[in-house]
Amino acid sequence: MWLIDGRRSEHVAVEDRGLQYGDGLFETMAVLDGRIRHLPLHLARLAEGCQRLGLPRRVLTPLRDELAALAASQHNAAVIKLIITRGEGPRGYAPPARPQPRRMLGVFAWPSWPASHYTRGVAVRVCDTRLGSNPQLAGIKHLNRLEQVLARREWSGKRWQEGLMMNTHNHVVCGTMSNVFAVKASRLLTPSLATCGVAGVMRAAVRRQAAALGLSCEECELGLDALAAADELFLTNALIGIWPVRRLGDHQRAVGPVTRQLQQAMGLAGARS
Amino acid sequence: MWLIDGRRSEHVAVEDRGLQYGDGLFETMAVLDGRIRHLPLHLARLAEGCQRLGLPRRVLTPLRDELAALAASQHNAAVIKLIITRGEGPRGYAPPARPQPRRMLGVFAWPSWPASHYTRGVAVRVCDTRLGSNPQLAGIKHLNRLEQVLARREWSGKRWQEGLMMNTHNHVVCGTMSNVFAVKASRLLTPSLATCGVAGVMRAAVRRQAAALGLSCEECELGLDALAAADELFLTNALIGIWPVRRLGDHQRAVGPVTRQLQQAMGLAGARS
Repeated sequence: MWLIDGRRSEHVAVEDRGLQYGDGLFETMAVLDGRIRHLPLHLARLAEGCQRLGLPRRVLTPLRDELAALAASQHNAAVIKLIITRGEGPRGYAPPARPQPRRMLGVFAWPSWPASHYTRGVAVRVCDTRLGSNPQLAGIKHLNRLEQVLARREWSGKRWQEGLMMNTHNHVVCGTMSNVFAVKASRLLTPSLATCGVAGVMRAAVRRQAAALGLSCEECELGLDALAAADELFLTNALIGIWPVRRLGDHQRAVGPVTRQLQQAMGLAGARS
Repeated sequence: MWLIDGRRSEHVAVEDRGLQYGDGLFETMAVLDGRIRHLPLHLARLAEGCQRLGLPRRVLTPLRDELAALAASQHNAAVIKLIITRGEGPRGYAPPARPQPRRMLGVFAWPSWPASHYTRGVAVRVCDTRLGSNPQLAGIKHLNRLEQVLARREWSGKRWQEGLMMNTHNHVVCGTMSNVFAVKASRLLTPSLATCGVAGVMRAAVRRQAAALGLSCEECELGLDALAAADELFLTNALIGIWPVRRLGDHQRAVGPVTRQLQQAMGLAGARS
């Protein structure tokens, strides 16, 4: 079910710049107990995205009420996907002088992951597809996602639950749909997202929680060797929460105490249903 | 007017992966005298794009007849824009196992450019927005075009007709909507598109024409200094044909004989109407 500019519809204009050029943003949000988890963080990332792309911030004004109403109407855990585009315009890359941005809200059933993803952890491969660098687009969740699509195409089946992506300097940036954290000597490390990657909402929430627990967290450049040498590894995103990594490529890993501590403190120790 | 999978419609499913992720390709084609100019080059680039993105080639099968019929029905010069997407699929980056690609054909009025763009040339600025590198996506005309949108947002009005974009190594790659050629000692030089940029159909046609005229053409790395020091500069795309550059940033330039020779040989010496 989709709401497009407040009305139920499953269709958009083919001339929408979201389709023509990927000229827009999106968010994928967890609805739990009738509320959107970490809504302020989602809205903050959207506002940053609007600023970077030059989308008028007024598109966000009706969203807070719409999102609250849509979330409150969900009796079960659900996913809300929000897309904001620059709307329609004449042919060509030049944005219209007065864009009429469009907002699209879709509701999806909550995905069911095995409880073991939270307790025993998940298997993660390393993708061949690299992330190109562009500081203007780094961090925000824009609609240009072919790199993630190509990386996710590299495997199918259930052997791997996620794939890590590197930049062209052989630094790990993130998973196709998640951020990655390493724990080394009780300190958290996570890749810098200054030139590529998406700054996940759960990544921000984990960093906030870590600070509250007195754990330091540092953004840095992490090669595969550094990841492999870490005491613990885990993945985050707004839907999955925290998944420990039990296997990186061919190497088995143990689920560690810092990952457990963060899962417990944030209420992310098991699968929601 | 749009034909979507062969039927007239102005709308597509909001869950089309073209909108959700920019998961698709496009072409912008000139219709002159009821035929598409350089159609085989457009189809060859599409086929290359399908192969890179893993889109089934069968999506191209009905296109040749559809394009011919649509072009033949145009009494005036026109533009056909073609979009091919991976179609719909479940939420998430993973492509469906059996994608149902979608094709969209739009017809637009021919843009009217001043005749002086062909005779006296155009003014070109240098954009701040850079092109990120990704060899897997370089050359093909995919739907992830935010870099071009952001570059084109850098100016408005008629002072500049195009903006050049550089990669992160300060090499000029292309214009926001065109390819660029330099002439130095009667040899053509054009940027390599191995890591970013779009390999334009008119770029290929110009290289073919240059070979037929006995002019050498080399792909190379070109900084701004090298461009500024060139004897001639010109821009190409499938619609505009060949535009000489009469100003690069603050520097006036002359339109030269090699540019004129190519325009004449290819029938691109003036504006179409």
